[in-house]
Amino acid sequence: MHAYRTHNCAALTKADVDATVRLSGWVHNKRDHGGVLFVDLRDHYGITQIVADEDSPALPVLDRIKLESVVTIDGVVKARADAAVNPNLPTGEIEVFARDVTVQSRADDLPLIVNSAEDYPEETRLKYRFVDLRRERVHANIMLRNQVITSLRRRMIDQGFSEFQTPILGASSPEGARDYLVPSRLHPGRFYALPQAPQMFKQLLMVAGFDRYFQIAPCFRDEDLRADRSPEFYQLDFEMSFVTQEDVFQALEPVLAGVFEEFSGGKSVTPAGEFPRIPYAEAMLKYGTDKPDLRNPLQISDVTSHFEKSGFGLFEKIVGGGGRVRVIPAPNTHEKSRKFFDEMNDWARREGFAGLGYVTRKGGEFGGPIAKNHGTEGMEKLYAELGLGENDGLFFAAGKEKDAAKLAGAARTRVGEELELIEQGCFKFCWIVDFPMFEYDEELKRIDFSHNPFSMPQGEMEALENKDPLEILAWQYDIVCNGYELSSGAIRNHKPEIMYKAFEIAGYSQEEVDANFSGMIEAFKLGAPPHGGSAPGIDRIVMLLADEPNIREVIAFPLNQKAQDLMMGAPSVVSPRQLRDVHIRTIDPPKADDAEKARVDNIGD
Amino acid sequence: MHAYRTHNCAALTKADVDATVRLSGWVHNKRDHGGVLFVDLRDHYGITQIVADEDSPALPVLDRIKLESVVTIDGVVKARADAAVNPNLPTGEIEVFARDVTVQSRADDLPLIVNSAEDYPEETRLKYRFVDLRRERVHANIMLRNQVITSLRRRMIDQGFSEFQTPILGASSPEGARDYLVPSRLHPGRFYALPQAPQMFKQLLMVAGFDRYFQIAPCFRDEDLRADRSPEFYQLDFEMSFVTQEDVFQALEPVLAGVFEEFSGGKSVTPAGEFPRIPYAEAMLKYGTDKPDLRNPLQISDVTSHFEKSGFGLFEKIVGGGGRVRVIPAPNTHEKSRKFFDEMNDWARREGFAGLGYVTRKGGEFGGPIAKNHGTEGMEKLYAELGLGENDGLFFAAGKEKDAAKLAGAARTRVGEELELIEQGCFKFCWIVDFPMFEYDEELKRIDFSHNPFSMPQGEMEALENKDPLEILAWQYDIVCNGYELSSGAIRNHKPEIMYKAFEIAGYSQEEVDANFSGMIEAFKLGAPPHGGSAPGIDRIVMLLADEPNIREVIAFPLNQKAQDLMMGAPSVVSPRQLRDVHIRTIDPPKADDAEKARVDNIGD
Repeated sequence: MHAYRTHNCAALTKADVDATVRLSGWVHNKRDHGGVLFVDLRDHYGITQIVADEDSPALPVLDRIKLESVVTIDGVVKARADAAVNPNLPTGEIEVFARDVTVQSRADDLPLIVNSAEDYPEETRLKYRFVDLRRERVHANIMLRNQVITSLRRRMIDQGFSEFQTPILGASSPEGARDYLVPSRLHPGRFYALPQAPQMFKQLLMVAGFDRYFQIAPCFRDEDLRADRSPEFYQLDFEMSFVTQEDVFQALEPVLAGVFEEFSGGKSVTPAGEFPRIPYAEAMLKYGTDKPDLRNPLQISDVTSHFEKSGFGLFEKIVGGGGRVRVIPAPNTHEKSRKFFDEMNDWARREGFAGLGYVTRKGGEFGGPIAKNHGTEGMEKLYAELGLGENDGLFFAAGKEKDAAKLAGAARTRVGEELELIEQGCFKFCWIVDFPMFEYDEELKRIDFSHNPFSMPQGEMEALENKDPLEILAWQYDIVCNGYELSSGAIRNHKPEIMYKAFEIAGYSQEEVDANFSGMIEAFKLGAPPHGGSAPGIDRIVMLLADEPNIREVIAFPLNQKAQDLMMGAPSVVSPRQLRDVHIRTIDPPKADDAEKARVDNIGD
Repeated sequence: MHAYRTHNCAALTKADVDATVRLSGWVHNKRDHGGVLFVDLRDHYGITQIVADEDSPALPVLDRIKLESVVTIDGVVKARADAAVNPNLPTGEIEVFARDVTVQSRADDLPLIVNSAEDYPEETRLKYRFVDLRRERVHANIMLRNQVITSLRRRMIDQGFSEFQTPILGASSPEGARDYLVPSRLHPGRFYALPQAPQMFKQLLMVAGFDRYFQIAPCFRDEDLRADRSPEFYQLDFEMSFVTQEDVFQALEPVLAGVFEEFSGGKSVTPAGEFPRIPYAEAMLKYGTDKPDLRNPLQISDVTSHFEKSGFGLFEKIVGGGGRVRVIPAPNTHEKSRKFFDEMNDWARREGFAGLGYVTRKGGEFGGPIAKNHGTEGMEKLYAELGLGENDGLFFAAGKEKDAAKLAGAARTRVGEELELIEQGCFKFCWIVDFPMFEYDEELKRIDFSHNPFSMPQGEMEALENKDPLEILAWQYDIVCNGYELSSGAIRNHKPEIMYKAFEIAGYSQEEVDANFSGMIEAFKLGAPPHGGSAPGIDRIVMLLADEPNIREVIAFPLNQKAQDLMMGAPSVVSPRQLRDVHIRTIDPPKADDAEKARVDNIGD
């Protein structure tokens, strides 16, 4: 017989009655029924009920042992009495009568209770993560994560991708977020950096002629942390050669739809091949954001033209100054009190906006100051155009286009939530496409890249040479699910001459481009294929599937919000020898008002 | 029609003749046959021959373009004339007549030639790795690596393992090799360390109740580099709960045998379930090493007893002093000259040994000083015992046991190679088991751990309390293939009281154990299962399968032997701002003779 188990704790059923078995696991729970002890024995797979009566030598041992001790039980499988059957447990029809017990590991008092759903401070949970991870929800979250990643891998390979490992000891780049640095021992004064993403390497793999790359890639950003951010996170990083944007979509949609269908627990998922493609401009108009939650049925409309000459002075002034008026319907709000509408306005002010106007309607009758000023005829015309009914209210967001769009977007979400219009039980995907290549920087009074300088402009050189830069779109796209951006992506600009030209429009000389991006440019001069890709965030995908708002719930051993590992004690003080080995010393953080000290610190730089 | 390709460059066959196709790829080779240009167009998948004659508008473009430029060819598939068929190419029966060409990327002059097997300096190859990776051998190596890893994953999952990600930003540990450090921004003066292996985390996953963990785990060691070492390398890291050593073997053998069979290219592989288990003591005796290459049929024997009273003074003296005499047969060496034997002796001296004695034999007649001194009768007795024949020579390694074993092991390899006895075309696996738990440290004159202090001693507490420590074996094992150690592994010591006792034997107090290993010990006090695992090196596995002696041949973007990325320029100087952000400054490496400077540097510590 095996030293520890003949079966795991989810395996035994009625078919095993009378079998002599050996089980090992944690003492999950104990119930003393006067001389008979019931123990729930738990392992990774499940729970089996152990019974020890006064005849069993196991009784005194199990009676005294603390919860979460690890034991091996020798026993015989018995059928439970009908009344005692637990249909929710795979092993619910049987119990094991303990003939003997071996204690493998005796548990001390526990810092948190495993067999309860009680909430503990994150500090306790992370310090004793190895106990916390035994609890049902977080155990299930981590297994879900593992399965999601395995499924993503399988699906990518099925799509003809091959997984590569790119370097983790990389070069620091002046772009993007803050790098984690690693001092070099062999090269005094020099540093590696952990990758924020394997962007350069995946593009170089395409230049190297590998056709379809992917990687479940660890990425590192030394940013201030939030609930949905970890210093260390994973991307489904991928890149393809000889593709158009459409090819990228066709490759990724089956992967994402497939993995969501597999793990959604019955929630509906936008089918592969049917992900809506929403141009950026349309998204900003209809949803007030480039991360629209399509579970919300409300759509924003632009009604600026109705208020060019309106009795409503505020809107007339805004429109006259080039501003916009956007509206969000509030369907069937005839029973809602004035307070509902006023509180929406208060909310908008709290959020830093000037305010959210509104029109109420009940049985066809309009209410509120905007309706009064604009007049019933004007309102009826507006409602007819918007297709609104006689009991639908309407919220107004007015201001400069960007502000109006932002407020309208936030109000759309808020109205949808307040009216409980957000469709539940579904994952709704969309692509946001046609991002503008350039934008006008109001502060610096010049044209700059609006997103990624390395995306291919639509129309390529022809467009750069002949079009108004602010009209040029990029082959750049975001994938969005339920209002969360999973990833940006792009068809890359692989042609040095187009890159120089795009940078020239944004005010950079060829020398500046060469100085900052020589690695990439030089590679593109030695034969580069057209290529593109994306990198959906894996932690985010698991958070959506597990319905967890905090990224630390889907990472086995996360750093806390102060980027500490409380369990292992990282970061920690290291020995002087270790610092000398890598040619650095530590300095106290300079205080803002301590100019002399800062000056001294600078000497070392 | 797709913008870039209707087929890849390995797809077209006779079945496609007359089809209008579009192909994209790199200009691999060009041959001008007087007015007709033949172009080998290469992509990741293969090569297709393109033909452009004087009627084709593609001719002048292709004629002028440099090798490794990327082009898209529009054309028609034609069958090749019988004489021109290339049976070695999947597309060898057809060629594509180019009707048009689009240049996607124009290549400049190349730093290395892709379509040749010419050897270039590693510096050139790594600086232009994106070109080097296009070359057939290294491209194939990297794809082999990808496939091996995918296969390993699949096989581990088939064995019931689940893949986890453990932290890369971890805690520095005083044990083992040198850590790569990462200064913390939020915690001035403190540092993360990159993991040398996820050892602690995988054991904590077992304590957390996950039953079977694995990870294709990136590991980091800041050691001086060799051909077979990279600062960043990958392990098939795994751990299992409620297992004995036998369970670990049964889990891993099918994975390793399976992946080797899959990618060995027809070489034979030790079947799963048949990996020999060789006790450490036996390995040291028979092979002179704990990494025996079983392709070598030669085995070492201990013949000490024959020389207790021998006419051969040197051996008598060695044996009298407690030393050993080991022999390595040299079968069928009757035709070998004296020079062959003498050169083996010279070799042993060059390697730092005292020398390698020998006996020659031809038609039953012994030769050489040992035989002369030991006498024919003694030699015949010895030969009979060893089962050697009348034309077999014999090499002698004598000295202290360790030295004799080491020399005998090296000589066994050398003799096997010289006599071409190493079996080719096979991968021979074995486990080395029963490592001693403790050893006597001759220098410090005390008992110390011989390998891993955290392995479970065989016999557990009972053995620690009652046996001579030097007789206690550990549940520790190595997996070896063709003389290369792929990994160490162990059943772990999960019981604090046994750990304290084992450390006590090695001279450490409970306080010292608690101070240094509190994380693990505390975890084991809250309910730990028996567990064990191993972590075969993936780069090494791929090196064996690719038959490459240099680890950098199986890594897409390796650091060079000075730990530099010549392509991306890592490690690099970073900005003073970046250093200030993480509260460090750089120091010049102190010179050994510059005491004053070192003293000043130490102030910062």
